[in-house]
Amino acid sequence: MTKETFNAIDPATEQYLNGEFPQQGSSDVDFAATSALEISEQFRRTSPAKRASLLNTIADCLEAERENIVKRAQLESALPEARLNGELSRTTAQLRLFAEVATLGWWQDVILDTPIPDRQPLAKPDLRRHNIALGPVAVFGASNFPLAFSTAGGDTASALAAGCPVIVKGHPAHPGTSDIVASCFANALELCQLPQSVFTLLQGTSHELGQALVQHPIIKAVGFTGSIHGGRALFDLAQSRPEPIPFYGELGAANPVFILPNKMVAEGDSLAKQFVQSMTMGSGQFCTKPGVVFVIKSEACDSFLSTIRTEIQAQDGHTLLTSGIKQQYLSQIDFRGADESIQLIKSSPEFGVETCLFETTSQAWRDNPQWQEEIFGPQSIVVSCDNFQDMLELSHHLSGSLTATLQANKADYNLAKQLLPVLENMAGRIVFNGWPTGVEVSHAMVHGGPYPASTMPASTSVGTQAIKRWLRPVAYQSLPDELLPDTLKQSNPLNVTRTIDGVVEINNRE
Amino acid sequence: MTKETFNAIDPATEQYLNGEFPQQGSSDVDFAATSALEISEQFRRTSPAKRASLLNTIADCLEAERENIVKRAQLESALPEARLNGELSRTTAQLRLFAEVATLGWWQDVILDTPIPDRQPLAKPDLRRHNIALGPVAVFGASNFPLAFSTAGGDTASALAAGCPVIVKGHPAHPGTSDIVASCFANALELCQLPQSVFTLLQGTSHELGQALVQHPIIKAVGFTGSIHGGRALFDLAQSRPEPIPFYGELGAANPVFILPNKMVAEGDSLAKQFVQSMTMGSGQFCTKPGVVFVIKSEACDSFLSTIRTEIQAQDGHTLLTSGIKQQYLSQIDFRGADESIQLIKSSPEFGVETCLFETTSQAWRDNPQWQEEIFGPQSIVVSCDNFQDMLELSHHLSGSLTATLQANKADYNLAKQLLPVLENMAGRIVFNGWPTGVEVSHAMVHGGPYPASTMPASTSVGTQAIKRWLRPVAYQSLPDELLPDTLKQSNPLNVTRTIDGVVEINNRE
Repeated sequence: MTKETFNAIDPATEQYLNGEFPQQGSSDVDFAATSALEISEQFRRTSPAKRASLLNTIADCLEAERENIVKRAQLESALPEARLNGELSRTTAQLRLFAEVATLGWWQDVILDTPIPDRQPLAKPDLRRHNIALGPVAVFGASNFPLAFSTAGGDTASALAAGCPVIVKGHPAHPGTSDIVASCFANALELCQLPQSVFTLLQGTSHELGQALVQHPIIKAVGFTGSIHGGRALFDLAQSRPEPIPFYGELGAANPVFILPNKMVAEGDSLAKQFVQSMTMGSGQFCTKPGVVFVIKSEACDSFLSTIRTEIQAQDGHTLLTSGIKQQYLSQIDFRGADESIQLIKSSPEFGVETCLFETTSQAWRDNPQWQEEIFGPQSIVVSCDNFQDMLELSHHLSGSLTATLQANKADYNLAKQLLPVLENMAGRIVFNGWPTGVEVSHAMVHGGPYPASTMPASTSVGTQAIKRWLRPVAYQSLPDELLPDTLKQSNPLNVTRTIDGVVEINNRE
Repeated sequence: MTKETFNAIDPATEQYLNGEFPQQGSSDVDFAATSALEISEQFRRTSPAKRASLLNTIADCLEAERENIVKRAQLESALPEARLNGELSRTTAQLRLFAEVATLGWWQDVILDTPIPDRQPLAKPDLRRHNIALGPVAVFGASNFPLAFSTAGGDTASALAAGCPVIVKGHPAHPGTSDIVASCFANALELCQLPQSVFTLLQGTSHELGQALVQHPIIKAVGFTGSIHGGRALFDLAQSRPEPIPFYGELGAANPVFILPNKMVAEGDSLAKQFVQSMTMGSGQFCTKPGVVFVIKSEACDSFLSTIRTEIQAQDGHTLLTSGIKQQYLSQIDFRGADESIQLIKSSPEFGVETCLFETTSQAWRDNPQWQEEIFGPQSIVVSCDNFQDMLELSHHLSGSLTATLQANKADYNLAKQLLPVLENMAGRIVFNGWPTGVEVSHAMVHGGPYPASTMPASTSVGTQAIKRWLRPVAYQSLPDELLPDTLKQSNPLNVTRTIDGVVEINNRE
């Protein structure tokens, strides 16, 4: 039997690249899942230190292959070398951060209730709870961050830290990059004397591969970053399984920006330049791209718009990640631009796709709710409102988003106070006097938000809290100390922070 | 227009009870949701102390109506007066506990990252996150706890504590009880000078009512306790909305019990009596009823079974909660009992339904996976395994469950250690040398578990952590102190426990 294969495509030339990759399918999913299940219990019960050493070793192995990884990713994604070097550093930093998180106990949420044997009318039992790993999970690589949100990205790092074996469905736009990264996992697992089936990369261009993965009964949760269309289809499959499973999908966002009047007067020119820089970063292929800016009509605003137009027209061309993304970008721009109530300003590059700015009024925005849909690529829309009341009214009708940004001076604070509660209800992160692109990987980050920003708005896919997606609580009632897991033993041998009878018992080893 | 009405039915006599209740439908849902949304922002931003005072006032109002509530609940549920008095006390205790929780800050998960303005290559921003209320939520009352898991139950108490307006779909088995309880909410809201639309009770017997509620775009989450059949249908609706929402459904559990051999020798007789008491508690209509007991064939086990048979045959009859539950119980018993590979022992009561015990072998159990399905009512099944390996092998094939119980002596600990990791993977709570009925309302409780025990295995529907179901995180990047919510201000005016740069800053006011 000949196994089918596929090639990567250079988005700059649209030619095939060297290297053939297997078209894997449902039998490969079954093999990977069955193998993962066989070692799932062993991996769940490894010490946090062991998992930390695995994550650090993966980071070391990636560093050792830095040159190869960046070179291949550059060919497959058309992203600049400096950006990819930075992204690899972010990827290894994430792995090392989750190595640290694994050894800290807070994510296990250890809570103890002291028994009261003589309570009337019923004794109060000894109850202790902590979080345990869910079992084998699936991760879908994203096209726009071929390293930090892909094979070795934050989903994989956080799931391994939690103790879940991971099966990655590699993104077909960068199979060669994923292949080198997967070989680093294989090396690291061998160096750490852990079974290979802790991590599996599956490759292929068919939808069936991802569908089979999400539906496999052994898979207990899914991490996904990508489009609303593809993500919602997989979400629906995950929810319609006999046993539905959590599907952590980050599906898209408009990331609205609100510029308040005094700020506009004071800094309109500079804001215009910052905005164009943010919306074209990564060729507008960031999930946090500012996709719509709300401004209030004024002289300062006219000048702001004029600066933006100049900046847009000066833009070089962009090579998008895949020819599919490029085709979709061009057709969406054409379609939206054909509407009479919107104005389109474009750059005129010699190569690649043009940078596009749409301008419209609040009334036209209200009449065209489809304009809230994200267009992937170097494009954004500026909506001119008649006054602040008009802006505030519009803000109530925005879809869920990863971010909402407020540009305001001290003199705008009274208006800001009216907008903030609305923004809290529609976004996972509120940015003040900055731009939404650039997502810090830290403890307090929230990369999520109401649907479609996330299919699980109570979660974040970036930052240390992302580990909680791969866990569930278990309570133990009246277990003798000898039978309790180490995190819950009375003497606290792992030295984790515990909440006892509702009071946090501090432990600042952490 | 005449509005249709319905009556409650006395399950003991199957006669209509006094009192007519409105058959509400989708227009009532729309009115309730729209009204809830109007005050949602105001309610979300009330002080924790204000919400605590509301919860305590509701508890006071329920106490003031204790006699009426218990009397009506007795008529509608056929549950004994003492049980209902106890359940009302539990209900008011839950409300008061969530009043306390509301004023403690831990559920807001306050996390701060200190900025590093001169970090290279990029400045680290000031990031602060906390949890906020989701908005209006729906709660479905359960039939088997007409007070503690119904209109004023744990779902409602935890959602109000979080700051979410609540719309309850009352269970049609006890509309009069729900009606009195709802009048206590109305009084309490008035006493606390809060808008009435913080809480709405909707009543009716149609499926359309619940369906309209789950699908209403204003509703942001659902709490449900009930059957797999009904719960899964509503879960599917919630997930197929344009904006899917979290559906916290507790749908059913077999609650397996494992008795290890030395324990059986030492205490078989006493275990037999405890088991029959636990399985018949509340006429076997507890979600934590031990639905299957695994034992190992032995002389001690024979004696254990013989004691159970005696206990079963001595049982009085049971009046089940509704005639629907009774019909289903009788037909499920008949159907399962007709199988040749299972043995059925019954009581012979003069009134009501009989208590039933099924006995079978591990082989027959393997051949009939449908026996894992919960039968609501005073019934359980004992499965005799050939040896411990047989028992251990069976344990790997159990559905998700609220609880798993281990009965073991010190001499059984080596076997217990082999079973425990398997039980952790299938249950939300592990009970040692006890019985699963009886769910403590405390900090460490987990009432949930892998599907179908819960549609959201990372959550609990009982205990203080239940508040987290109604929240989602928001991060604030570089917001000036003046614009930050109080929980996140630098001076910590609400005095909540905070995690700063990954380190818990203790605050034992809490």
